[in-house]
Amino acid sequence: MERHNQEVIEKAIGAIGPLDGEAMAAARARQDQLTKPRGSLGQLEGLTIQLAGIRREAIPHISQKVIVTMAGDHGVVAEGVSAYPPEVTAQMVYNFLQGGAGISVLAKHIGARVVVVDMGVSATLKPSPGLVSKRVAPGTANMARGPAMSREQALQAVRAGIEVVEEELRKGLDIVGTGDMGIGNTTPSSAISAVMTGEPVNLVTGRGTGVDDAQLAHKAKVIQKSLVVNRPDARDALDVLSKVGGFEIGGLAGVMLGAAAHHVPVVIDGFISGAAALIATGLCPQLRNYLIASHVSVEPGHQAILRHMGLRPLLDLDLRLGEGTGAALGISLAEASVRLLAEMSTFAEAGVSDKEDNG
Amino acid sequence: MERHNQEVIEKAIGAIGPLDGEAMAAARARQDQLTKPRGSLGQLEGLTIQLAGIRREAIPHISQKVIVTMAGDHGVVAEGVSAYPPEVTAQMVYNFLQGGAGISVLAKHIGARVVVVDMGVSATLKPSPGLVSKRVAPGTANMARGPAMSREQALQAVRAGIEVVEEELRKGLDIVGTGDMGIGNTTPSSAISAVMTGEPVNLVTGRGTGVDDAQLAHKAKVIQKSLVVNRPDARDALDVLSKVGGFEIGGLAGVMLGAAAHHVPVVIDGFISGAAALIATGLCPQLRNYLIASHVSVEPGHQAILRHMGLRPLLDLDLRLGEGTGAALGISLAEASVRLLAEMSTFAEAGVSDKEDNG
Repeated sequence: MERHNQEVIEKAIGAIGPLDGEAMAAARARQDQLTKPRGSLGQLEGLTIQLAGIRREAIPHISQKVIVTMAGDHGVVAEGVSAYPPEVTAQMVYNFLQGGAGISVLAKHIGARVVVVDMGVSATLKPSPGLVSKRVAPGTANMARGPAMSREQALQAVRAGIEVVEEELRKGLDIVGTGDMGIGNTTPSSAISAVMTGEPVNLVTGRGTGVDDAQLAHKAKVIQKSLVVNRPDARDALDVLSKVGGFEIGGLAGVMLGAAAHHVPVVIDGFISGAAALIATGLCPQLRNYLIASHVSVEPGHQAILRHMGLRPLLDLDLRLGEGTGAALGISLAEASVRLLAEMSTFAEAGVSDKEDNG
Repeated sequence: MERHNQEVIEKAIGAIGPLDGEAMAAARARQDQLTKPRGSLGQLEGLTIQLAGIRREAIPHISQKVIVTMAGDHGVVAEGVSAYPPEVTAQMVYNFLQGGAGISVLAKHIGARVVVVDMGVSATLKPSPGLVSKRVAPGTANMARGPAMSREQALQAVRAGIEVVEEELRKGLDIVGTGDMGIGNTTPSSAISAVMTGEPVNLVTGRGTGVDDAQLAHKAKVIQKSLVVNRPDARDALDVLSKVGGFEIGGLAGVMLGAAAHHVPVVIDGFISGAAALIATGLCPQLRNYLIASHVSVEPGHQAILRHMGLRPLLDLDLRLGEGTGAALGISLAEASVRLLAEMSTFAEAGVSDKEDNG
């Protein structure tokens, strides 16, 4: 089983090549012919060029949009690191399936499908047509006392993410957004951020769903302890994932790898998706070119992640909900950008004088 | 005629009251019951509360969206302040009407109508079903040599904006975005910014559609000269508009006043809309509460305007296209925010444990 997981992952990584330079040059050339001052669409112009490179098309098209929201529970909640009780993970999964959560509403707003994946929720979830089960285990072990999961489980989680993307590809997929649900999951995300960015634990630990000052200090101590107990190796992303990660974090890393392997751009959400991106780019540095940062969260660790990866977020709205809510808003901007590239008239088409005409 | 213009404007200003505190409190209370950590939707939560206060509804509804894009020409282009020839204003109006401009594409993306208004384009435009004619004159006079327009013309421009909104209200209007087109119009916008914010001309003068260093220095000198020649009075916004403004800037100020008078939120675009907002809030300080800043432009004067008015932009994407493109993206975020407020489940509805349940 472990061998096979590894093979699936290696195959995806092997398929992730450089972006298509020819498509990017063509998109750049077209941007400069559209009826607007050159560069006046700012960050949206660079975004279209990146999307052209990923999709290998001069004028990429985005219509099939999917948010993959992965849920998992965390043994480390036994240490009292979250403001919410752990049963909320399962309750929120049902809320996703009933359309009452933030991501449900935003996905409708942008015309995206939401795929909810059980990566390892503690409670046994009732089967539902909208729920994909990829349960690795009923929650991770407590990382403050030992590894969160085995290396085999880490491989299984990443592989599951690749498979979820491949299933969506069969239904049609032009862009994927990542999202998460898991009470306690800012704690492993902070641990991953500290290891992978080299920042001190205090600087990458935040309030999550809303702990107070004393709980924040306690949370940082628990994270520090998990690093001392487990000694994750920053050069081995799978080691980091298994020791201080989470099933949904591994799954999201797999979504990123699987999407990039199939030339599908990945819009990453906030802090937990950022931690997954650290794992995924640790496994495959080329993946970075396929990632679009939707927003910067108020979680300080997320800012450290974006700095470390050199990603500039599209939005800065003080969001900290997760679920893929920021990714949904980012996907809408990505779709807007490619519609501008595709549908705006050129100077020649519109009979508009270009700058050079001005003696 | 002047008397009547003044009456229309005074009536609109008289109708602009404080926001509805009861609706805002109800929206705040509902935000705190939705299935998410309190405050986790960041700036979008404050936005829904502002929108509730403007619309006087606990759960405001946004579906009828309109971008008003106003065009005008500027006599000051004779001084060589723009990278583009002045005939581009009329050419771009035709591009708007044919659906080939940036704002045409983004309006389609967000499901908004675009109303294109000729406030005073130099060329005589062919009549078109999509074009509203409110021509004050075929372009302003050269503000480097005297007032851009008479005080009566300034009143006429503001009144026209109020009337455009009232016409749209009859068709259905839940939110309005402002947009502009006018070769040379960053020059009057910088002049207005300097007068109304008190910042030095150099700090509020940028490259517009793309002038080089020498042209930028020349542009700042022209603006400085227009202030010396005209001595606009910062305490009299109409004096500022008439001496160093533009017809589309006056029209947009009117759009803002007319919208607020009818409890319609106004999403302002970039630098030119910002200059119009300075004029409009100069006429009616209460208007500020009805304004939503969609984005911050790369034009340094726009940053000064937002600071001066204490508005935090939703987006920071280095846009500098105008036309209402930033406003369109901002309207989409506003619509998303009220959909979240309206459609997310509460903790009680979804059977999700709230934070307090966590002993």
